[in-house]
Amino acid sequence: MSLTIKLHIPYYPNITTYATYTSKIPPKPIYNPNPLLPLTLTTRNPKMPPIRSSLIDPDGGALVDLVVPDTLRASKTLEAESLPKLKLTKIDLEWVHVISEGWATPLRGFMREDEYLQALHFNSLRMKDGSLVNMSLPIVLAIDDDAKGLVGSSPHVALLGPDGDSVAILRSVEIYKHNKEERIARTWGTTAPGLPYVEEVITPAGNWLIGGDLEVLKHIKYNDGLDNYRLSPKELRKEFDKREADAVFAFQLRNPVHNGHALLMNDTRRRLLDMGYKNPILLLHPLGGFTKADDVPLDVRMEQHSKVLEDGVLDPETTIVAIFPSPMHYAGPTEVQWHAKARINAGANFYIVGRDPAGMGHPTEKRDLYDPDHGKKVLSMAPGLEKLNILPFRVAAYDNVEKKMAFFDPSRSKDFLFISGTKMRGYARSGENPPDGFMCPSGWKVLVKYYESLQAEEPSQQPAVLSA
Amino acid sequence: MSLTIKLHIPYYPNITTYATYTSKIPPKPIYNPNPLLPLTLTTRNPKMPPIRSSLIDPDGGALVDLVVPDTLRASKTLEAESLPKLKLTKIDLEWVHVISEGWATPLRGFMREDEYLQALHFNSLRMKDGSLVNMSLPIVLAIDDDAKGLVGSSPHVALLGPDGDSVAILRSVEIYKHNKEERIARTWGTTAPGLPYVEEVITPAGNWLIGGDLEVLKHIKYNDGLDNYRLSPKELRKEFDKREADAVFAFQLRNPVHNGHALLMNDTRRRLLDMGYKNPILLLHPLGGFTKADDVPLDVRMEQHSKVLEDGVLDPETTIVAIFPSPMHYAGPTEVQWHAKARINAGANFYIVGRDPAGMGHPTEKRDLYDPDHGKKVLSMAPGLEKLNILPFRVAAYDNVEKKMAFFDPSRSKDFLFISGTKMRGYARSGENPPDGFMCPSGWKVLVKYYESLQAEEPSQQPAVLSA
Repeated sequence: MSLTIKLHIPYYPNITTYATYTSKIPPKPIYNPNPLLPLTLTTRNPKMPPIRSSLIDPDGGALVDLVVPDTLRASKTLEAESLPKLKLTKIDLEWVHVISEGWATPLRGFMREDEYLQALHFNSLRMKDGSLVNMSLPIVLAIDDDAKGLVGSSPHVALLGPDGDSVAILRSVEIYKHNKEERIARTWGTTAPGLPYVEEVITPAGNWLIGGDLEVLKHIKYNDGLDNYRLSPKELRKEFDKREADAVFAFQLRNPVHNGHALLMNDTRRRLLDMGYKNPILLLHPLGGFTKADDVPLDVRMEQHSKVLEDGVLDPETTIVAIFPSPMHYAGPTEVQWHAKARINAGANFYIVGRDPAGMGHPTEKRDLYDPDHGKKVLSMAPGLEKLNILPFRVAAYDNVEKKMAFFDPSRSKDFLFISGTKMRGYARSGENPPDGFMCPSGWKVLVKYYESLQAEEPSQQPAVLSA
Repeated sequence: MSLTIKLHIPYYPNITTYATYTSKIPPKPIYNPNPLLPLTLTTRNPKMPPIRSSLIDPDGGALVDLVVPDTLRASKTLEAESLPKLKLTKIDLEWVHVISEGWATPLRGFMREDEYLQALHFNSLRMKDGSLVNMSLPIVLAIDDDAKGLVGSSPHVALLGPDGDSVAILRSVEIYKHNKEERIARTWGTTAPGLPYVEEVITPAGNWLIGGDLEVLKHIKYNDGLDNYRLSPKELRKEFDKREADAVFAFQLRNPVHNGHALLMNDTRRRLLDMGYKNPILLLHPLGGFTKADDVPLDVRMEQHSKVLEDGVLDPETTIVAIFPSPMHYAGPTEVQWHAKARINAGANFYIVGRDPAGMGHPTEKRDLYDPDHGKKVLSMAPGLEKLNILPFRVAAYDNVEKKMAFFDPSRSKDFLFISGTKMRGYARSGENPPDGFMCPSGWKVLVKYYESLQAEEPSQQPAVLSA
């Protein structure tokens, strides 16, 4: 039988390491008189929480939901018409979506200055009872001088979507200075030019931030054929309950799923079963908001993920695929906390973290922007994330001997080939096949088709670039 | 009589605001049968802690003291001789001083990576019991590639002072990467060139950090005639006990004391007396470590402070002047937390904070580097500082009508003249007198004499500069 022992590391109360001992004594058969009731194995750590449908409380205790009830929609929409109006960018609207559904619970709107300062300096917010919840990214709405003048002394403003429709009311607003340099330095740990979110969102933004409480007039929809994958934290929690999950492990990704990812997701499930959980559910949770230009677009990734499930690389019976609506910052150790915290609110009590989460290459130097190990270290120490079980995973790479993705074995390192996201995209772009067993063939085809379509477009774009 | 009511602001549990109501009813005389025992006034807020000699616990519960006992000095010094040796800079040695006396309690040495990451991302350290203590600055020792090679796999190293004598042993060392850009960005909120501590300490430093537990072979002394002012946290706590202080309010400064400072220190004392404290003691606590080139040097400031006490501008009976041995970062809201946290360890339970603490001008732009209000806001929200009473003070300026330093009255703002540190130094440098009542004349003379001595030196330096 196999016995897994949970080890706690001092200073890292919520990092869990496993040591597995295997003996030749077969496990004792366990008789469960009532198969509908969960069964506790003897190897289960007695300190683990009891199995229950509500696995982890939202931050602050209650999930935030800021969409106005149907009965009030007409009157609120009418009120919005009478207020000073601020136009949102596409990415502002993604944040309205994120806040309105409670991913950032207990945040009830765009940050006022006290919340902004706490996020920036402490990566956490203090609750009225003195406890801390994690909050590592400033979730803010920038406005320029003209918009500030337009708001004047109005306590409330209306927010308009990019196409001009009323989206929300922001109440009891507070306007404060947007020190972009300080925000960038403290969030990214660099001010080097070329950070995707900075160039797209912060540099063009105004010199003021406006905070306040959101009332969202209707659910944010994108009408891109993927809205049914955009489950809110409330809907996800309901789904986990319906499936009687006794553990939910979340996997954040913004890349196609290869067999190395699948290996560690399946391995995590096995470890959770070994720990005594009877029905661990995987939340495969691709990020759906802003990503940098050379990342694979959401619709292509979603098609690729569905092939991975169709091919049985991941088990559809124990996997939920949904879209996490947040924009991507590429802010490494600071951002991975946001990724984990939002999944607490969605009901996941285990979070898988790998090498260099939310990282990228340094924009101006030939190195990773972040130490690849800092993400999981920072995550394990972050205030407000103590209740989440962090599962750091071992690195998977292509094993040239076994001809499959496997956990890297440093004792025979020369047998392994590391295939980064950049390398994978390079294969697909050039039409070259990756080694057998890197990704299920139907999933790979989706990528190849996407890059072929890009190349088909490129000639028509080329002259425009050349004439510029 | 005067009744002071303490107001708590939501989200800011340790900021205290006062509203004072004055009535014409004279206070009832209170008879204290035993004048040696403290007397509790009826206006005292019942929620205030009872009067006691130990006013505030050090972070983590016990004050750190890393100076080896006399009996072990010889053997430890002998051991140090046998270890790989790292030479400290003058500022490294200031940090050894700071750590060894427990100002950074519970820190027991230069930070290892887990402590460094927590300081950088969360401005706090998690204790084994799950509680947080404040720690906003990375307190680290940098080494270069050669020194790293020299340490090799030795678990312990000897630290040598700038003049080559053995100062300390660093035990169970851990060497990790010194990502200077990230450290600077997250500590200062900018990477602009011209930050004094960065240029002096970080830019020339090596690409590795070495953490470990310190054993300091003997008390750090400077032999500059000021060592008797360098009271350790232990000595300060003893002094407060000896004086039977029932409140200690710390005032951090790196500038000469003018009458505006004195006004707010005396006003704070009055407020504490109003609250019912019988014996509030002022800890006038000039910073003694590295300061930027145009700040007034420590010896001049100490002479100026002694004149202020001789002249009775501050009351010597209720004031302790001591030197805080830390180097200055000029890191605004990040550094003010360090300044406050270190004073908790020294036994101060009240901390005065003003406009733009630890701030300076932006090194490349024409503006303050930090929002002048962020320091006190961040301080009031900082994890681990909840037990400290933060006393934000109103701005004092020169009142041209009353011909004295007074609290700024916005209703007649044109009557007030703001005299910044830069302006004050400008007056002294040019030999121009500041307005009457700005500073006590004997204190002012100290400054004038210092700037005259600089000018006397300048001619001899001028040719060297011109020939460069």
